[in-house]
Amino acid sequence: MKKHNFSAGPSILPQEVLQKASEAILNFNDENLSLIEISHRSPAFVAVMEKASNLVLELLNLENKGYSALFLQGGASLEFLMTPYNLMKEGGKAAYLDTGAWSSKAIKEAKLFGDVEIVASSKDKNYNYIPKGFEIPVDADYFHCTSNNTIYGTQMKSFPKSDSLLVCDMSSDIFSRSLDFSQFDLIYAGAQKNMGPAGATLVVVKDDVLGKTGRKIPSMLDYQIHISKDSMFNTPPVFAVYVSMLTLQWLKNLGGVAGIEKINNAKAALLYDEIDSNPLFKGVAEKEDRSNMNATFVLTDETLKDKFDALCKAAGLSGINGHRSVGGYRASMYNALPLESVQALVNVMKELNK
Amino acid sequence: MKKHNFSAGPSILPQEVLQKASEAILNFNDENLSLIEISHRSPAFVAVMEKASNLVLELLNLENKGYSALFLQGGASLEFLMTPYNLMKEGGKAAYLDTGAWSSKAIKEAKLFGDVEIVASSKDKNYNYIPKGFEIPVDADYFHCTSNNTIYGTQMKSFPKSDSLLVCDMSSDIFSRSLDFSQFDLIYAGAQKNMGPAGATLVVVKDDVLGKTGRKIPSMLDYQIHISKDSMFNTPPVFAVYVSMLTLQWLKNLGGVAGIEKINNAKAALLYDEIDSNPLFKGVAEKEDRSNMNATFVLTDETLKDKFDALCKAAGLSGINGHRSVGGYRASMYNALPLESVQALVNVMKELNK
Repeated sequence: MKKHNFSAGPSILPQEVLQKASEAILNFNDENLSLIEISHRSPAFVAVMEKASNLVLELLNLENKGYSALFLQGGASLEFLMTPYNLMKEGGKAAYLDTGAWSSKAIKEAKLFGDVEIVASSKDKNYNYIPKGFEIPVDADYFHCTSNNTIYGTQMKSFPKSDSLLVCDMSSDIFSRSLDFSQFDLIYAGAQKNMGPAGATLVVVKDDVLGKTGRKIPSMLDYQIHISKDSMFNTPPVFAVYVSMLTLQWLKNLGGVAGIEKINNAKAALLYDEIDSNPLFKGVAEKEDRSNMNATFVLTDETLKDKFDALCKAAGLSGINGHRSVGGYRASMYNALPLESVQALVNVMKELNK
Repeated sequence: MKKHNFSAGPSILPQEVLQKASEAILNFNDENLSLIEISHRSPAFVAVMEKASNLVLELLNLENKGYSALFLQGGASLEFLMTPYNLMKEGGKAAYLDTGAWSSKAIKEAKLFGDVEIVASSKDKNYNYIPKGFEIPVDADYFHCTSNNTIYGTQMKSFPKSDSLLVCDMSSDIFSRSLDFSQFDLIYAGAQKNMGPAGATLVVVKDDVLGKTGRKIPSMLDYQIHISKDSMFNTPPVFAVYVSMLTLQWLKNLGGVAGIEKINNAKAALLYDEIDSNPLFKGVAEKEDRSNMNATFVLTDETLKDKFDALCKAAGLSGINGHRSVGGYRASMYNALPLESVQALVNVMKELNK
């Protein structure tokens, strides 16, 4: 029996994508060769890369608006240093919003490059809310934020306007909801939540913000070089790009970001309604900042833990343990998780309360 | 019909590895989940990473000798800058041997970090030989070389002794031949030739050479951080690591590096004998520096090109066009290429001369 996969990432992918990926490992594109043993410069793979990049811009409604979509390596963690390398001027300054462990890591790397101002932090309450009402210093080269915080189950519902460039780590909620993506100058995201397997990093950047720092940037860390080579400056992570392309195509067929947003809203409503109405459970994050991707919750009576865990296991629910820094439970409801899986979890929660 | 895959990289992998990889995309380890939709911190995947790292050290005969094996991202191109970041002292100096396009790229990145001395270059003859008799300056922090040059078909048969650290880019011939690997302080290699699919980079480093530069190294570029986290500082390229593990296990079952070396020697001898005895062909590289991985050759009569290409196509030979900077043909004979494929190529060469 296939499990209900609530893994926080790497996470569930559409079954039809897994099927096609499995087939491509043996015979890609009817070429009688495996996807992973052909040249990345072969016409068949160049077409995959082009299609993946075009789908990104199409799904984010950023076509013909001066943006480039890149498939790189190294995860969001490498972007933590590529961001200041590419956007912070020599002797410059950046503003960061601290909403959790990943924001903190981004801040740590940026500090190697210059002055970093933390405009606000929710660390005082173990990051269970999104700070509001902060000010971005007028001399900041850019403002950096994390749109969704998997560990704590919080999500930014709006983004500040300022004269600084707007940079967002969207690793865990990109392609999950409609936003005006043109408000961002740089978006990056590890693939392994809503887009594909681990091993590829998506970067969406506004071309005209680049090349202005005065820094000497090593080639592999320079967005302009990757743009000029269509993400093929060196051998790309072929398999991860291919599976991302399949997943983006799956999303387009489903009605794109607006289509999946409706489904994601329904999944989140179903689970949060149960958390709020079932006396045995309590949500962790502030209601107004709750993530539609990762719902964090705890038992109100810890003695029920073994019983609840056993019910979850019997129902085939996988990956719902909370992160060690928060405890309790975390249900990750990424794009590919079907509503039925959330219903299965809700059924178990109701069962516990019988 | 499965083709004879002479691709220069990404390149042929063992058929049994492709079969297992394809199955793991649907159901990994009988967990009823895909390999690419589970947590990289799950016991099942942690075991994969451990096994892959241990196999690397075992196959290179570097167990218990103070070395760490890491699986990172970014390819050799990212190592071009991680090498000076981790090994070149502030205000220091490095020595490089220039044996081709990849050496040149490594040199370009190192120059951003300090003084770079090119001890010798074979650029004068379009890199068709390996320079010898050069001296490594006594004040160099390290000496860097490229063991095998895919584009030109040359391979270093021995490595210089000096007081500097010895660094080698072995992307295209690691695990193909017996060497005293303990002579190297740092070895790196993109996975996509003898080890697995594109998307993983192997780094083998002697622990006690690290932490001595005085540089502030960004976390993702710091070997010591990756060592302390067992290659899991951030989400690793799960699929590429898994397929590398399978390929390394395949190699071990075949008798390890010594076992495959015999097969590689037989394949190379078969092809070079034909190149040298068939009047219609001529080798590109100097004989003493010929690569056992990539044989480069040209037709002595260019008017035969269409006929030879047609014969190759009819025989199912794939990927033997030479690199644009050399022309002619290039047969890449990585570990997973069977002797029968080389025989098929030799048969076509003989057919042309009938």
